[in-house]
Amino acid sequence: MAEEESNENVVFIGNKPVMNYVLAVITQINEGVGEVVLKARGRAISRAVDVAEIVRNRFLQDLAIQNIETGTEEIEGESGTSNVSTIAISLGKGA
Amino acid sequence: MAEEESNENVVFIGNKPVMNYVLAVITQINEGVGEVVLKARGRAISRAVDVAEIVRNRFLQDLAIQNIETGTEEIEGESGTSNVSTIAISLGKGA
Repeated sequence: MAEEESNENVVFIGNKPVMNYVLAVITQINEGVGEVVLKARGRAISRAVDVAEIVRNRFLQDLAIQNIETGTEEIEGESGTSNVSTIAISLGKGA
Repeated sequence: MAEEESNENVVFIGNKPVMNYVLAVITQINEGVGEVVLKARGRAISRAVDVAEIVRNRFLQDLAIQNIETGTEEIEGESGTSNVSTIAISLGKGA
């Protein structure tokens, strides 16, 4: 059963350098968290994929992408509501 | 068996407006192509997710994301090789 997704094992990807998020994932996995979920919206989606790839290729080769979900959220802006794409990348041990 | 992936049913996402690619996907699906694969690298990854979401939410509601694969490619630049993330989003009819 997929680990209950509480905010604790979620890493929200923003505009910080990629390595900040890579470090956050490695820290959580080393603390024994079984599954880490990377969440991003809009342009940060590319960075979320970068984080997943860097973690798996350079640091935790046994970590696998277990699931990728995309979606659309409505956000309130000055000029009314607009849609933004979202992604959630689940990283965990084993296939 | 997943439809053999020839370049014909692949839409490479670049820097053009999102709607160009949305139209390309709709055209292929209307021509009877069973599965269309969106491929993107680097910053265009966010746009690829936008295309998938817009096509499914606004135009072809019965189209489903059948698979999402990420990867890393080495590219030659002036200052030597560097890594870039890639994504391939398979869109098709049915669950």
